[in-house]
Amino acid sequence: MTHSLDTAAVIDPVKLEKLAEVAIKVGLQLQRGQDLVITAPIAAMPLVRLITKHAYIAGAGLVSTFYSDEETTLARYAYAPDESFDRASDWLYEGMAKAYGNNTARLAISGDNPMMLAAQDPAKVARANKAMSIAYKPALEKISNFDTNWNIVSYPNPAWARQMFPDDAESDAVEKLANAIFAASRVDVADPVAAWAEHNATLARRSGWLNGERFAALQFTGPGTDLTVGLADGHEWHGGASTAKNGITCNPNIPTEEVFTTPHALRVEGHVSSTKPLSHQGTLIDNIQVRFEAGRIVEAKASKGEAVLNKVLDTDEGARRLGEVALVPHSSPISASGILFYNTLFDENASCHIALGQCYSKCFLDGASLTQDQIKAQGGNASLIHIDWMIGSDKVDIDGVRADGAKVPVMRKGEWA
Amino acid sequence: MTHSLDTAAVIDPVKLEKLAEVAIKVGLQLQRGQDLVITAPIAAMPLVRLITKHAYIAGAGLVSTFYSDEETTLARYAYAPDESFDRASDWLYEGMAKAYGNNTARLAISGDNPMMLAAQDPAKVARANKAMSIAYKPALEKISNFDTNWNIVSYPNPAWARQMFPDDAESDAVEKLANAIFAASRVDVADPVAAWAEHNATLARRSGWLNGERFAALQFTGPGTDLTVGLADGHEWHGGASTAKNGITCNPNIPTEEVFTTPHALRVEGHVSSTKPLSHQGTLIDNIQVRFEAGRIVEAKASKGEAVLNKVLDTDEGARRLGEVALVPHSSPISASGILFYNTLFDENASCHIALGQCYSKCFLDGASLTQDQIKAQGGNASLIHIDWMIGSDKVDIDGVRADGAKVPVMRKGEWA
Ligand SMILES: [Zn+2]
Ligand SMILES: [Zn+2]
Ligand SMILES: [Zn+2]
Ligand SMILES: [Zn+2]
Repeated sequence: MTHSLDTAAVIDPVKLEKLAEVAIKVGLQLQRGQDLVITAPIAAMPLVRLITKHAYIAGAGLVSTFYSDEETTLARYAYAPDESFDRASDWLYEGMAKAYGNNTARLAISGDNPMMLAAQDPAKVARANKAMSIAYKPALEKISNFDTNWNIVSYPNPAWARQMFPDDAESDAVEKLANAIFAASRVDVADPVAAWAEHNATLARRSGWLNGERFAALQFTGPGTDLTVGLADGHEWHGGASTAKNGITCNPNIPTEEVFTTPHALRVEGHVSSTKPLSHQGTLIDNIQVRFEAGRIVEAKASKGEAVLNKVLDTDEGARRLGEVALVPHSSPISASGILFYNTLFDENASCHIALGQCYSKCFLDGASLTQDQIKAQGGNASLIHIDWMIGSDKVDIDGVRADGAKVPVMRKGEWA
Repeated sequence: MTHSLDTAAVIDPVKLEKLAEVAIKVGLQLQRGQDLVITAPIAAMPLVRLITKHAYIAGAGLVSTFYSDEETTLARYAYAPDESFDRASDWLYEGMAKAYGNNTARLAISGDNPMMLAAQDPAKVARANKAMSIAYKPALEKISNFDTNWNIVSYPNPAWARQMFPDDAESDAVEKLANAIFAASRVDVADPVAAWAEHNATLARRSGWLNGERFAALQFTGPGTDLTVGLADGHEWHGGASTAKNGITCNPNIPTEEVFTTPHALRVEGHVSSTKPLSHQGTLIDNIQVRFEAGRIVEAKASKGEAVLNKVLDTDEGARRLGEVALVPHSSPISASGILFYNTLFDENASCHIALGQCYSKCFLDGASLTQDQIKAQGGNASLIHIDWMIGSDKVDIDGVRADGAKVPVMRKGEWA
């Protein structure tokens, strides 16, 4: 922590406060009287304080922050009895679900050390994650189903910066990460709120075009990849701002560069290779290669983290099927920065990606009114997990496949065709 | 925060870790498989981390910490809309109540800046406290009724140390407070666990004598004080270790020097003056003078904080009646240190005291089996609040009054008679 606070001095305080404002005004569009639940790594305290201030300025009722702490997480792995790894705070997440169902907004600050659990027993990591996923399910459903407005932003946690820039002095690493976050989050411009309005309009045009085309499938072709991703019946593309069921239009991810929709859980065929490493809850999974048959992953390899990958796939039946497919041009600002963040929020926005697990009900036409059974019948996947991984690059082409088999170029060498 | 961490270096790390061990082994006697909920000011992070470590060593299932932050609390007073002050996180405290009812242990770290809210509007402070009390009620009941093992320990928060030692440099103030906490918590000896066993035995002897006497009332006589405190029918004295309903013997307060029982809510007569200032949720209330008729405070004055005191008394009907009376010799180590802590956990253990509000059901013979109605019929008070304030000194005498009116000396000039 001493390090964190020393290095916090290199983070531009004006841009950090702009990030807090963007989180409240664009990310959440927090409304007067709404309560707000924040989760954050404890190193992100300076940003939590600024977000809390701007939440109250916007008229928040009550702001409650729940901190995670890398040191106490590691103490659990070092000292806790074996049975601890099947425990999770069900009562807390049940309560959060209740709050989200009651118009409380949700803000998560991302910035954990991506290698936090790299040295821990993968079996324990998997058990702890599974227990957490089960406990968290009622709250996650409120978020996935957009019952309330929610947002994720990032803080340049020194433990994260050190992983990204291992050859730099810590303060240099934090400064680089801070500036990369500010650029990707569009807060390094004079009027970030206006910049976000323009960006949201661009993403809405892209998803509008795809919704007009109504492709039956997307075909990805590139090195190690020949994958046909069938799209769910009645799928709908989204990107940028979204209107939650409480009527509030929010930007759930900051940054965001993607347009995305729901694949058909039973109609994915072929093989695909990841193009960037995936940092999953403290473990790095690299060079993933999987093969799908009838929507299901029947073979999975990775050069690093293969054991964790296979544990993830065994979480439940839906963990082997897709819940999301997303398109991001290779020239997007995050990709152009050339920086690997080891953080899905950033890396998924540098590249086309797919997600294992739970689909988003909002990625269906009239999705809010569909039952779980209807979503399933239309091809929507269900799972405790939702894990994005990157399959796009400047060497990947994408075609839209119409119902009659005709192909329409969607992307060439990673750019919109 | 930078200050906190600079000054954290003056806190003896060996004694801090002994305090963490005492909290787990004596304060909670945490059992293998028990989950633990910790609440703490964010400055207490170093102690939270040590307690978490020792909790897992003792076999904890899951340790969850909820931090409060003076800066975000003050941001609420500075920026939040008026209606914010009637809000509280009911869903969180309902969840905690559920956890405590399910064998989760509870540890609170005390150390907030006692003057945190001194400059804020007393009406807003009172509204926020009342909303919090109502939301917290289900969780507080589990604690007051000893459904589970619980404990409070303290951390030398710099913001607290500055209030106690305003003329010292901050690092000197923190060092003085740290050493005072270590001494009062009996962790500055070779074997703190053995020292606590001996201390618990002494307190058990005192409460045993009082339970044998079965006084009808206690009479306090001193400067500005002539008060007769009727004791509840079937009252029972306690002190030191207590066995919770989950069968675990814990030491709820560290430090503790008191033996205490339940007054009769309708049988308190006379007037009493406070002998130390009371720090109540960020406001200092000094030189309290109140008059009781038939158990009820009918007149209340204070030289400082009178407005807050009167708001407190108006919380509910039970807030004007007593829920606890406690005896502490003037020569107790905390009193002998001559330090005023502006913190009830310490100051109540330097002096005989009474508490406004809720009584403890365990301070009745066979209390665990009594219904709320039976407790009320025996004279037990009920309220949203429980606020201790100090009425003992080396100038106060106490007599036990038997049912037949005979008086027995209990304390003379503040010492056991
Ligand atoms: Zn995505
Ligand atoms: Zn995703
Ligand atoms: Zn007491
Ligand atoms: Zn008390």
